[in-house]
Amino acid sequence: MASSYPRIPGHEVAGTVETVGEGVEQWTPDQRVGVGWFGGACFVCDACRDGDFISCRVGNVTGLTFDGGYAEFVVAPADALAAIPDELSDAEAAPLMCAGVTTFNGLRQSGARAGDVVAVLGLGGLGHLGVQFAARMGFETVAIARGAEKEQFARELGAHHYIDSTADDVAASLAALGGAKAVLATVTDADAMTAAIGGLAPRGKLVVLGVPHEPLSVNAGAIVGGSQSVAGHASGTAKDSQDTLRFAALTGVRPLIEEYPLQKAADGFDRMMSGKARFRVVLTVD
Amino acid sequence: MASSYPRIPGHEVAGTVETVGEGVEQWTPDQRVGVGWFGGACFVCDACRDGDFISCRVGNVTGLTFDGGYAEFVVAPADALAAIPDELSDAEAAPLMCAGVTTFNGLRQSGARAGDVVAVLGLGGLGHLGVQFAARMGFETVAIARGAEKEQFARELGAHHYIDSTADDVAASLAALGGAKAVLATVTDADAMTAAIGGLAPRGKLVVLGVPHEPLSVNAGAIVGGSQSVAGHASGTAKDSQDTLRFAALTGVRPLIEEYPLQKAADGFDRMMSGKARFRVVLTVD
Amino acid sequence: MASSYPRIPGHEVAGTVETVGEGVEQWTPDQRVGVGWFGGACFVCDACRDGDFISCRVGNVTGLTFDGGYAEFVVAPADALAAIPDELSDAEAAPLMCAGVTTFNGLRQSGARAGDVVAVLGLGGLGHLGVQFAARMGFETVAIARGAEKEQFARELGAHHYIDSTADDVAASLAALGGAKAVLATVTDADAMTAAIGGLAPRGKLVVLGVPHEPLSVNAGAIVGGSQSVAGHASGTAKDSQDTLRFAALTGVRPLIEEYPLQKAADGFDRMMSGKARFRVVLTVD
Amino acid sequence: MASSYPRIPGHEVAGTVETVGEGVEQWTPDQRVGVGWFGGACFVCDACRDGDFISCRVGNVTGLTFDGGYAEFVVAPADALAAIPDELSDAEAAPLMCAGVTTFNGLRQSGARAGDVVAVLGLGGLGHLGVQFAARMGFETVAIARGAEKEQFARELGAHHYIDSTADDVAASLAALGGAKAVLATVTDADAMTAAIGGLAPRGKLVVLGVPHEPLSVNAGAIVGGSQSVAGHASGTAKDSQDTLRFAALTGVRPLIEEYPLQKAADGFDRMMSGKARFRVVLTVD
Repeated sequence: MASSYPRIPGHEVAGTVETVGEGVEQWTPDQRVGVGWFGGACFVCDACRDGDFISCRVGNVTGLTFDGGYAEFVVAPADALAAIPDELSDAEAAPLMCAGVTTFNGLRQSGARAGDVVAVLGLGGLGHLGVQFAARMGFETVAIARGAEKEQFARELGAHHYIDSTADDVAASLAALGGAKAVLATVTDADAMTAAIGGLAPRGKLVVLGVPHEPLSVNAGAIVGGSQSVAGHASGTAKDSQDTLRFAALTGVRPLIEEYPLQKAADGFDRMMSGKARFRVVLTVD
Repeated sequence: MASSYPRIPGHEVAGTVETVGEGVEQWTPDQRVGVGWFGGACFVCDACRDGDFISCRVGNVTGLTFDGGYAEFVVAPADALAAIPDELSDAEAAPLMCAGVTTFNGLRQSGARAGDVVAVLGLGGLGHLGVQFAARMGFETVAIARGAEKEQFARELGAHHYIDSTADDVAASLAALGGAKAVLATVTDADAMTAAIGGLAPRGKLVVLGVPHEPLSVNAGAIVGGSQSVAGHASGTAKDSQDTLRFAALTGVRPLIEEYPLQKAADGFDRMMSGKARFRVVLTVD
Repeated sequence: MASSYPRIPGHEVAGTVETVGEGVEQWTPDQRVGVGWFGGACFVCDACRDGDFISCRVGNVTGLTFDGGYAEFVVAPADALAAIPDELSDAEAAPLMCAGVTTFNGLRQSGARAGDVVAVLGLGGLGHLGVQFAARMGFETVAIARGAEKEQFARELGAHHYIDSTADDVAASLAALGGAKAVLATVTDADAMTAAIGGLAPRGKLVVLGVPHEPLSVNAGAIVGGSQSVAGHASGTAKDSQDTLRFAALTGVRPLIEEYPLQKAADGFDRMMSGKARFRVVLTVD
Repeated sequence: MASSYPRIPGHEVAGTVETVGEGVEQWTPDQRVGVGWFGGACFVCDACRDGDFISCRVGNVTGLTFDGGYAEFVVAPADALAAIPDELSDAEAAPLMCAGVTTFNGLRQSGARAGDVVAVLGLGGLGHLGVQFAARMGFETVAIARGAEKEQFARELGAHHYIDSTADDVAASLAALGGAKAVLATVTDADAMTAAIGGLAPRGKLVVLGVPHEPLSVNAGAIVGGSQSVAGHASGTAKDSQDTLRFAALTGVRPLIEEYPLQKAADGFDRMMSGKARFRVVLTVD
């Protein structure tokens, strides 16, 4: 991917089609759609020809390689759009376009099957969605976060178990549950990620969604005997986002959001950066 | 697994059944069989009940939890045996019971499909078998080793490409071939392993067979965008070994060995530890 | 499998361990356990050595190859038992040992992922469990049965859609929903099964659980273009049953049952054969 | 797919790019390319958005929905092209664009792993390629055809075993080899296909490539106990064809062909329809 500045940010976008480009027949004006991190595919690289658009070599990203959603209008590639179901408002749909699809898609591609123990590491913007998705996919869901005071909230989201990583040994706690078939790592703390590896069941997978500054330190001895793995996961395509929205509409998954009018974008940005927002700040346009 | 000493070592064993225990009906005297790292399953832990014997919680290992193959006779659990096909001599079969099954099984479980680029990192006891297996499975096979002088040998084993890791950038060289769907890491040098990650194709997998002393340092940024993974692989069961032997018989894969009579076991051991053996030292009994 | 008569029938059994055989350490007296269709593995055939116990060549079946559950006591192989969680009574657990595990396991092995459209064909002993499982696994769940009057019940079980096969074209109705990734065929009417094939999505699978008298008539033209398949599914092992029970305890799936004391087994049998039982007749012992 | 007439037939095409359309950057004049059955995707239906182009709802087919290869020039969608490696002549590459990719892709998607027993049913245009591919993918390869006189040829192609379906019971013969993990059905005789089902190993798959006039009669009892399946397989995309060509170049797979100049297309067509061609008639242009 390549970017240039100035650039309008924002890669969790929801709204209504104003008009479509020449030759575009799959979208029509007034249709409700969203755009996420995935900014469209090149269709000609090897990954695209294999149908693996999210691995597209070009890597178009909304708000990075073209202008994003801090705006009243966005011009986006037709293949980067996802249809929004009636059950979801625009403000509810927007955070599902990245935080949502990343966790939903990470879980459904994790190899875990219904009934398996699955842990979600972190309970922020991604994690609070991950827990909801995991519970509604029929996983025996474990939320892992910092502090005992978050347990109540985790259980309200659907978690069957809660591990307070400031008090408990994460690996041992997971092992006591039989081991996790997948740990969805929504944090960006490398040590917190690798601390969970010892709690993986045989063939279990640490699904890495974020990129910590420091590298992950993986003890081979901890993954060879039980054939575990540490697996990077790249968000999802527009179709994956559409599947996410449809699943949320079907099962009642909703992001917790705080709304700010677009004119107060700077305030919303500050709120987000303060880490106090629960859990997604959404800019709205009248 | 638990061990105690003194203990007779040796977990790549081949020979003939002398007698069988009470109730054993699947093996008969005079049948040719082998025993490998896998020393039998407990059949009652969760992994065993799921049919995943190699992940058995008990973890019996030949030569560690019971006496191994530096001997004229071995007592082994019936479920730890693999039948040896007529096409293979005992001396040829023995190294396939661990070095062979580990690489064969690692490759067939790697997710790579025929025609995909697959690299074998290291050209020693495991690697020289891995290259043969990979080529005969229809992979576009890349051998990676230290020094230009090994290229000829690698190609004789079936490699289509050779990367000299002392002269070439391994990741860049793999990327130039389109990226590897799997890199089978037969070395025990953590840095050499992680150096290959950048050469993985989208969805590619670094298959870790050995356990270096130091941890692997995995840059999350290198595996998230392309959904690559670092996956531990535990050798294989007795049935996996039997499949390995059958495949070797079918396709002509053979280990390179140096034979020593059991009486000269110490000399054979020294030879092995010198790193000069090409590539497996086999102790023989008249 | 081989049977001989007289034979006590009954392959959905739940109770308490009275005593264990020599060498059995994984079960203890007073533990609550169940036994299902799966009557234990041979551990030595190729399928067993591959960990695929349900495909065991010997094929022991409770109530067929050894005496079953129409009794106060049952002697069963240790590996044929599943632990029953506290949340389930014996009477609730029993039908999950075959009707339950067959549908649960069929769904989790179907290849369908959370959010996919999955249909359950039939709403009897197996189907009423299949619908509950499918909904709790996060599938967009379609119930297909005969008659409009069953729709209300299907929706109470969790179905998102209902198709009345006496009034609607099943294939067309499924196609209108985008096509089913899996159709779980719990009926034993070959024509009803094959009628659903045209409603499969690309790569969709008709999962055949039962064995109709007449063969399935599969039009190749209907499965080649979209790479669909017709897949037999054999119930599940004791561990699969244990996973089923655990999932039911976790998510609230329960069979609808009618209880008869063992002394009135004949009445219970007649009730079952009348087709009026909703949906499982359970024989109880004081 | 929709067709209209007159229409130039031919969906196994190889040649050189004369010129490219506006905006096409991935192909350049003088590049050697092929076009097969797959005539390009719509990119907007659900299957295409999921990356499953061969299941595209529009279903463009070369020689059916646009003019095909019985010509000196062909106009084809850019995404329908596959690059031809230097190792293959145009005449060798052409039959790989449908007969080749269908068998290669069917095998690599069959779920069979290296060393597994895999059978190819039929030894004609598709089958003689399927046997070569299977052997070079490391399968224990069984060729099944009519008549003892074809055994020698089958073995030359790489088959390890031969079953003469006019003399032997196909299912029993496969079972004697341990059962087939996949049977690639290249014939169009429904009875010959279903006769092989009984020879499938547990979890084995009958891969249906062609469409017989009559439906397949599948005995549910034969697929439920061992969890076998009957799976339709749709040829492959242009990228799949490119992978096929690359694999053929790497491993030495070649079609047997008879060449006719384009001016004698009618003779070539008659030869093909006579069933005597071994095995593909290729029309050539000077």
